Amino acid sequence: MTADETLLSPTSRTTVVRGRQRAQSERTALLDVLRSARLCHMGVLVGNVPRVLPTVFGLDPEGPDRAGTLYLHGSVASRSLVEAPEQDICVTVTVVDGLVLARSAFHHSMNYRSAVIVGRPRRVEDEHERTRALDAIVDQVVPGRSTHLRAHTRRELAATSVLALPLYEASVKARTGGPIDDEADIAAGDVWAGVIPIGEYVGIAERGEDVEPNLDVPDHVLTLSRV
Amino acid sequence: MTADETLLSPTSRTTVVRGRQRAQSERTALLDVLRSARLCHMGVLVGNVPRVLPTVFGLDPEGPDRAGTLYLHGSVASRSLVEAPEQDICVTVTVVDGLVLARSAFHHSMNYRSAVIVGRPRRVEDEHERTRALDAIVDQVVPGRSTHLRAHTRRELAATSVLALPLYEASVKARTGGPIDDEADIAAGDVWAGVIPIGEYVGIAERGEDVEPNLDVPDHVLTLSRV
Repeated sequence: MTADETLLSPTSRTTVVRGRQRAQSERTALLDVLRSARLCHMGVLVGNVPRVLPTVFGLDPEGPDRAGTLYLHGSVASRSLVEAPEQDICVTVTVVDGLVLARSAFHHSMNYRSAVIVGRPRRVEDEHERTRALDAIVDQVVPGRSTHLRAHTRRELAATSVLALPLYEASVKARTGGPIDDEADIAAGDVWAGVIPIGEYVGIAERGEDVEPNLDVPDHVLTLSRV
Repeated sequence: MTADETLLSPTSRTTVVRGRQRAQSERTALLDVLRSARLCHMGVLVGNVPRVLPTVFGLDPEGPDRAGTLYLHGSVASRSLVEAPEQDICVTVTVVDGLVLARSAFHHSMNYRSAVIVGRPRRVEDEHERTRALDAIVDQVVPGRSTHLRAHTRRELAATSVLALPLYEASVKARTGGPIDDEADIAAGDVWAGVIPIGEYVGIAERGEDVEPNLDVPDHVLTLSRV
């Protein structure tokens, strides 16, 4: 990776226009946002509608695409995945950290980190890369899970489309801190303002009905859900 | 509202093709998903890219649009909001309820509820409706908050675009329950499988630095964050 690729892309499509003070230009910030999420929202033009679909993703910051690779997958019958490599798509990841309650509706906000990645996805054909991509997707949702699973079968691989999106053309926005109110509203002093922290709640793992009760709960499950 | 509008739209754009068994056809399911979320992802075509942006929204199930109204807002300078009323856009809301750990990567999944709404947004010009929309957006994030705030000023209203999207053309998908594994993998009996519940964690409200310490924390904050 050359030096300029450690910065996020400066193309006009991913230059933050609104809320410039919230844009971050470091690639580390992009990876931080991506690593904090289990889900992304993919935008693909299907029949003239910019369809937005929630989906899981995998990450390989050292992947073969420019500035690293984000992997997407789905059924070979999925229209969105079939049409995606013929166009530029968008993948957005959003992590909400808090609700910002101001004295006026106008200054209400959220503390958040979000990443928007734009690009032409590459259909992944190489079997080794497909396997690594699918493992990365499992591990993005449950870190450490993939090594406990049997190998993907030929039939499973044949039923699955895998796409690779370069991490090159991307923007990151973030907001932190308390409400920023108009002086007159602060002076009035009659409305409570502040931040309500928001995060992900992880509950206690529930063993599947057909799982042997004596089977040890593996570490990657214990770590995530503190059974 | 006529009877057929209590069902979700049967147009091809919002008919669920993949995972048909997970589609739900009740309008109550749509409202349930929308009421469970504080954020949506909006898809708008900007410069040939189906741009996906996280944003807050407001709900009026009895709103003036067909099958009710979802409100979006933003700065009048936002390119996405300026271009949206000239095209069909997509609004997607996703609520994750659990991580489904199967014995194979292939059968990993999530328990979730998601709604996809498609349509041509209407620019809201009427001042009464704009005010109600902005209050609905505040109350979607923090229920009960809007009645504690002063009225919107003319300047604030002038700086804000409000869009209305009909709840008519929509689809809802949901998954619940444990992993569904291949029989051979169940018989092998060597991999733990189950569900890790996921939800929203709401922390303890933090008073803003410039807020009088003696000011009572209002009920809508206490209810949400159990200070």
